[in-house]
Amino acid sequence: MTQQTEQATKTRVGLVGASGYGGIQLVRLILDHPHLELTYLGGSSTAGQEFGQVYPHMAPWFNQQCEAIEIEAISERCDVVFLAAPNGVALELVPALVERGLRVLDLSADYRFTDLAVYEQWYGKERKDHSTNAKAVYGLPELFREKIANASLVGCPGCYPTASLLAAAPLLKQGLIATESLIIDAKSGVSGAGRVAKQGSLFAEVDGSIGAYGVTQHRHTPEIEQVCSELCGHNLTLQFTPHLIPMTRGILVTLYAQLRDPGLVTEDLNLVYTAFYRQAPFVTILDVGVYPHTKWVTGTNSCYIGLAVDPRTERVIVLAVIDNLLKGQSSQAMQCLNIMMGWPEDLGLPKVAFYP
Amino acid sequence: MTQQTEQATKTRVGLVGASGYGGIQLVRLILDHPHLELTYLGGSSTAGQEFGQVYPHMAPWFNQQCEAIEIEAISERCDVVFLAAPNGVALELVPALVERGLRVLDLSADYRFTDLAVYEQWYGKERKDHSTNAKAVYGLPELFREKIANASLVGCPGCYPTASLLAAAPLLKQGLIATESLIIDAKSGVSGAGRVAKQGSLFAEVDGSIGAYGVTQHRHTPEIEQVCSELCGHNLTLQFTPHLIPMTRGILVTLYAQLRDPGLVTEDLNLVYTAFYRQAPFVTILDVGVYPHTKWVTGTNSCYIGLAVDPRTERVIVLAVIDNLLKGQSSQAMQCLNIMMGWPEDLGLPKVAFYP
Amino acid sequence: MTQQTEQATKTRVGLVGASGYGGIQLVRLILDHPHLELTYLGGSSTAGQEFGQVYPHMAPWFNQQCEAIEIEAISERCDVVFLAAPNGVALELVPALVERGLRVLDLSADYRFTDLAVYEQWYGKERKDHSTNAKAVYGLPELFREKIANASLVGCPGCYPTASLLAAAPLLKQGLIATESLIIDAKSGVSGAGRVAKQGSLFAEVDGSIGAYGVTQHRHTPEIEQVCSELCGHNLTLQFTPHLIPMTRGILVTLYAQLRDPGLVTEDLNLVYTAFYRQAPFVTILDVGVYPHTKWVTGTNSCYIGLAVDPRTERVIVLAVIDNLLKGQSSQAMQCLNIMMGWPEDLGLPKVAFYP
Amino acid sequence: MTQQTEQATKTRVGLVGASGYGGIQLVRLILDHPHLELTYLGGSSTAGQEFGQVYPHMAPWFNQQCEAIEIEAISERCDVVFLAAPNGVALELVPALVERGLRVLDLSADYRFTDLAVYEQWYGKERKDHSTNAKAVYGLPELFREKIANASLVGCPGCYPTASLLAAAPLLKQGLIATESLIIDAKSGVSGAGRVAKQGSLFAEVDGSIGAYGVTQHRHTPEIEQVCSELCGHNLTLQFTPHLIPMTRGILVTLYAQLRDPGLVTEDLNLVYTAFYRQAPFVTILDVGVYPHTKWVTGTNSCYIGLAVDPRTERVIVLAVIDNLLKGQSSQAMQCLNIMMGWPEDLGLPKVAFYP
Repeated sequence: MTQQTEQATKTRVGLVGASGYGGIQLVRLILDHPHLELTYLGGSSTAGQEFGQVYPHMAPWFNQQCEAIEIEAISERCDVVFLAAPNGVALELVPALVERGLRVLDLSADYRFTDLAVYEQWYGKERKDHSTNAKAVYGLPELFREKIANASLVGCPGCYPTASLLAAAPLLKQGLIATESLIIDAKSGVSGAGRVAKQGSLFAEVDGSIGAYGVTQHRHTPEIEQVCSELCGHNLTLQFTPHLIPMTRGILVTLYAQLRDPGLVTEDLNLVYTAFYRQAPFVTILDVGVYPHTKWVTGTNSCYIGLAVDPRTERVIVLAVIDNLLKGQSSQAMQCLNIMMGWPEDLGLPKVAFYP
Repeated sequence: MTQQTEQATKTRVGLVGASGYGGIQLVRLILDHPHLELTYLGGSSTAGQEFGQVYPHMAPWFNQQCEAIEIEAISERCDVVFLAAPNGVALELVPALVERGLRVLDLSADYRFTDLAVYEQWYGKERKDHSTNAKAVYGLPELFREKIANASLVGCPGCYPTASLLAAAPLLKQGLIATESLIIDAKSGVSGAGRVAKQGSLFAEVDGSIGAYGVTQHRHTPEIEQVCSELCGHNLTLQFTPHLIPMTRGILVTLYAQLRDPGLVTEDLNLVYTAFYRQAPFVTILDVGVYPHTKWVTGTNSCYIGLAVDPRTERVIVLAVIDNLLKGQSSQAMQCLNIMMGWPEDLGLPKVAFYP
Repeated sequence: MTQQTEQATKTRVGLVGASGYGGIQLVRLILDHPHLELTYLGGSSTAGQEFGQVYPHMAPWFNQQCEAIEIEAISERCDVVFLAAPNGVALELVPALVERGLRVLDLSADYRFTDLAVYEQWYGKERKDHSTNAKAVYGLPELFREKIANASLVGCPGCYPTASLLAAAPLLKQGLIATESLIIDAKSGVSGAGRVAKQGSLFAEVDGSIGAYGVTQHRHTPEIEQVCSELCGHNLTLQFTPHLIPMTRGILVTLYAQLRDPGLVTEDLNLVYTAFYRQAPFVTILDVGVYPHTKWVTGTNSCYIGLAVDPRTERVIVLAVIDNLLKGQSSQAMQCLNIMMGWPEDLGLPKVAFYP
Repeated sequence: MTQQTEQATKTRVGLVGASGYGGIQLVRLILDHPHLELTYLGGSSTAGQEFGQVYPHMAPWFNQQCEAIEIEAISERCDVVFLAAPNGVALELVPALVERGLRVLDLSADYRFTDLAVYEQWYGKERKDHSTNAKAVYGLPELFREKIANASLVGCPGCYPTASLLAAAPLLKQGLIATESLIIDAKSGVSGAGRVAKQGSLFAEVDGSIGAYGVTQHRHTPEIEQVCSELCGHNLTLQFTPHLIPMTRGILVTLYAQLRDPGLVTEDLNLVYTAFYRQAPFVTILDVGVYPHTKWVTGTNSCYIGLAVDPRTERVIVLAVIDNLLKGQSSQAMQCLNIMMGWPEDLGLPKVAFYP
C-alpha cells in the first residue's frame, strides 16, 4: 500500500459539498493522495464555517474555511473538481466548469443518464444541458476504464448501482442468464441517507430493525437498467428492492438470475468472474463456498464477490459487497480521477479493511 | 389485551430446554398466561442450576431449579410439555411422552416433516419413530388451525418458514403465481443462532456488517417447500437465501414471484391477503404503499405484511416481518397450545410492540 | 402478572403529547391497563392525524385521531390527564386543569421543582403559577408514595433523576456517605433525546460511538440535588455527567461516594438497600457480586441495583439500571396514577423483560 | 499522511499471536509500514493455517501460512518481534528472545509491572524472569519516549491504562489534584474482550445494553496505579470501573478529581494539557466546551481529550477517547517501534478517522 509515484507539482483539486458524508470522505482521500492539493472547499450550507465546526474530529488535521460556491473561484483555483452536492445542483454548475476546461467528477445523479428524458422522469427536474451531458462518461472503472481515461466529465455511479453492476456485469456481458429474470435484493447501511436530520434516520428508529423502501420505485432502478442494457445489448427490465439495515456503512446486493445453460456449475461461473475482473485491482472473487460480509470492505475501495449456482432451481445467486460511501461514492470518484490523470488506478486508495 | 377468561384449575405445563433463547421466552409466556402453571423445568446443561443463574435478570421473578430430563417426572407432573431443545433431542423423548398421554409441542425440527427421508437427508439423523411422527401436525395456526385443535403432537415451525409461509400462502393457495418463480430473500437477527458461544455470533464480528449464509443449502428450504407444495397442490422447488443482520431480534422476508395474471394490481392482491387472513388475529395486512419494519413486531406474536405489484416486471413483491423468537418460535407454540386447549387463540400473547 | 382487580366503570384518561416516545409508551400502557379508558388524545403537531399515521405499527390496534389541545375538551372528557409535551407547555395548561378538578401527571420538568427560581434559572422560562406549583408532588413512588397518594398534581421525575435517586437514596437517608463526595456518572440510550430529527441523534452519528455531553451543566443536576438535599437534610452539591450510548433504551448510573464508616462491607450495604426497598415492588437489589445490565429491565417498570464497597478506597459504588422511557418516564407516571387511585401499585405495569 | 522516509533494506519483523484482534491489526499495520517486512507469523491455535482461513477478508491481500511458535525460527528470521498472545505466554518466550538480541514489543500484561509481586497477585502466575523484567520499559510514548528509544524490551500498556494515563498525567505530574480523589469511569467497546467465543460477548447479549464489570477488582487497576504513582511521586490508590458498551471499537474514560486550587478554571487546565502534550503528535486537546466521541478516533492511533472544571464542586472532569485496538494496543506498539528505531514517531500510523 506504499505509494512510489511522485510528481513535481500537485494537481489542484476543488470540492463542492463539504458538509455531507461524501464530502468528508473526499477531504480525507484528497489529504491522503500524494498528487493532490485541496485548493477550493465550498458548500452552500457551510459557507463561512471552518471545516472543524462541521466535523469536530477534523479540526486538528484540517480546518480550512468553507467558501460559497462560485464558478469563477473554482475555475481559477482548480484543475479538477469533485461535486458532492444534492441532485440538481451539479447541472447548474457543470456546463460552465467544463467550458472553462476543468475536469469534473460529479457524485450526484445529474450526469449518469445517457437519455435525459429518463432523468427528467425519475428526478422531476427539467434538463437543458444536453450538449454537456453528451460528454459525460459513466464512472464505473471496472466497466468503462477507457472512456473514463479520456473523459472531462464523469457522472459517478450511485451506491446501489455500483454494487449491482459489479455483481451483474459478467453474467450480462457473457450472455449467461435470462435477462428478464434478474432480481437485485439490496441491503444498505444508513449513511446512504446522508447527514440530513430525518426522523427515519434516527438511531432510535433504525436500531434493531430492518425494512424495505422504494419497493418497485427506487430511482437507482433506471440507472442500473441503463448500464445492464448496454452490457447485454438490448433493453432490459429488472427488479430492484433496497432495504435499510441497522449499520452505518456498507452495501450487500443479492442477485438472482435464471441461467440459460443449466449445466453450468458454481466453479464455472467462478472462473468467468475471475477472468472478467482479472485487470480490476479492487474486485476480489472469493473462493467457492465463501460469501462476503460488508465489514470485509468497510473503509476501502474494494468489492468482494461470492456466488453459487443452485442446480435445483437452475439459478445463479451472486453476492457483492462494497463500502457505500467509498467504492459506492467517493473513493470510486477518486479511482476515476486516477485513471483520467494517467496515475496508477489504486493511487492513494484504501484496499484492506481495519477489522473488526 | 386484558384477559377475561378464567378457569378453576391451571393446566400443568413442563418445559424442556430452559437455557436457550426459546426457553427464556417460554418461561415468561407461561408466567404471563392465566391458565398455565409451570410444574417442570428441565435441561441437560442447566440441571441443578437455579434459573436465575442461567438468566440473572429473572432471579427476582422466577428462580426455580432446573432438573435433569426424565420422562417419568415430566409425564407425572405435566399435562402439556414444550420441548425447546436442539434438533435431535425431541425424537428421543416424544414417543414416550405421547404414549403417556401428554400434549407435546416441539420447537425443534424433529416433527416438522411428513416425509422423514427428507429429515434424514437434511438433518443427518436416522429416524425410527415413524408412527409417532405420523401423528404430528405442523404448528402454523394461520394455515392449520383445525388440525392443531385436534393434535396431541405439534411440530412447531422454524422461524424462517413461519415468515416465509405467511408471506407466500395466499399466492399459492389462490394459484396466483408461477410457482417455480418463487424466491425468498430472508433477513434475520442474530438471536436465531441461539445462546451458544460461537465466533460468528460475537458482537465484534456481527456489528456493522451483513452477509448471506447457507446459500442454496439452508435446512429451512425443504420445510418451506413441503408446506408450499401442500398449498399449491404439487411439488414445488423454491429459492431461499438467509442473511444475518446486525440486530438481535426480528425476521424480514422479501418474497418475489411472477404473477400468472399480469393484469392484477397491488390493490387486488391487498384484498386477497386481507380476505385470506380475516380470521387471523395476529396477521396484519398493511395499507398499500406501507412496508413493515421488523421493530414494529418486536416482542409480539404479530406478523405484518406489505406488498406491491410491479407492472413493469409483472412480479409481486411481498414483505413480511415477525419476531423470530416469538411468532417465529415460542409464542407461536403458545398460540398452538391455546388452540389445542380450546382457549382464545390470543390468550396471554403480546400483540403490540413497545416502540422504539 | 395477571390482573385480578376489576371495577365497574373505567376511569377516563387523556393524553397530551401523542407523537413523542413518551406518548407512544403511554398509549400502550393505557390500552393495557384494566381500569383505564383513553378518552382524549391530543398534540400540537399531530392534531388531525390518525395515530397510525404517526406510528404506523399502531394502526391495526389503535388508530384514534389526534385532536388539538383544548382545555375545555380535556376537562369535560377526562378524570385524569397525562401531559407528555416539551418543557414549558404544561405550565400553560396545568393551572386550569387542576382548577377544574382533574388529576394531572406531568412528564415534563415544569412541576418538579419546589423552588421555581431554580426552574427559571435552568430552564430559562419565567413562572407565574406559584400556587399551582405548590400543590405539585414529586412523582418518585419509592420515596414519596404517601404524598403521591394524596396528590392532584404530580411532577414526574426525569429519566436520569429516577435512576440516580433510586441509587442514592438509601445512602443519603441513612447518612452513610460524605455527601459532597457524591458523583453520578450516567449512561443513556438515545431515545432519551426524543423523536425530533436532530443531526446528533442520527444512526450514522451515534452508532459505534460514545461521548459525554452537558458536562457540569446538565439540567437534571438541580433536580437530583433537590431531592438528595431533602433526603440528607441539608443542601448538597453533586457531580452529574451524562453520556450518550449507542443503544435505543436504557439508563445505567454509576454512583461513587466516600463512606463515612470505612468498616462497612458490601454485605452490610446490600442489607441496607434490601431493607430500604422492601416495600418497593419494582426495585430489585441484586446479590453481592452481580451488577445489572440495562437490557435486564428493557420494556419494564423495574429498577435493578447492584453495589460494591471498595475497601482499598473506602468508597461505595452503586449501579442502577432502568428503562429510560418506562420507569424513567411513562410507566412511572402510571405507577403514580395507580397510587393516586388506590389501585395496586403494579397494576397493568410490565415487570419482566423480554430477553435478549 | 504521505510517507517520505525511505531506507535501503527493510527491518525484518515477526508477529506471534496472529489470530486475535491485536494480531490482525498488526498484520495490517506492518503491511502499511514503509520500513517493515513481515518475516515470521506464528500462533498456537493457527499453526498450519493460511491467514485467509483465519480472516477471510485478508486472503486477497495477505495469505501467509501461520507457523508454530519456535524461538529459533523467530530469532533467526527477525530483528524485531511483536508478541500479541494471551497473558502468560510472553514470559516463556521473552527471556530467550531478548538474549538473542531481538527487540521485543509485548502486548500482554507480562512486562508492564516493575514489581512482579503485583503481577503475581493480580494475574495468578509465578514469575522467575526478574532480570529480563528489569529491562522492560512501559510502552506509553507520550510519557516514556526516551526510555522507549533505548529499550530492547517494551511492555505495551493495556487499553484502559492508555486512555486513563493520558487523561490523568498532566494533573498528576503538575500536582494539581488531591490524588486520593481520583476516579476513572471507563467505557469500552466489546472488541477488548478479544475474538474468543464467550457467551457474554455474543451480539444478542451485548446489543442494546450496557453494564459494569470487574467493579473494584479489574486487573488494569494496579497497572494504572503504578504509573500514576510514578507521575505524582508517591503511592496512590484510585477507583477504576470499566463498563461494556454495545459498540465494537473505542474507549472513553471519564476522569474525576478534586482540584487542589479551587481557583483554577477550565481555560487554565486546557492550557496545561496543551503544553503537556505539545510534542505528542497523536494527542489532541479539544477546544473548551468540546467533548470527544470515540468515533472521532476509530481506526487511528490518536487520542482526543476534552476537559471541564466545575466551579460548583471544585472538581475537574477529563474525557479521553482512543481506539482500544490501535492506540490502546497495536498501533501504540508500532509507535514504540518507530521510536526504538529512530524513525519518525508517526511513520505508517493512521491519524484521521474515516467518519462516520
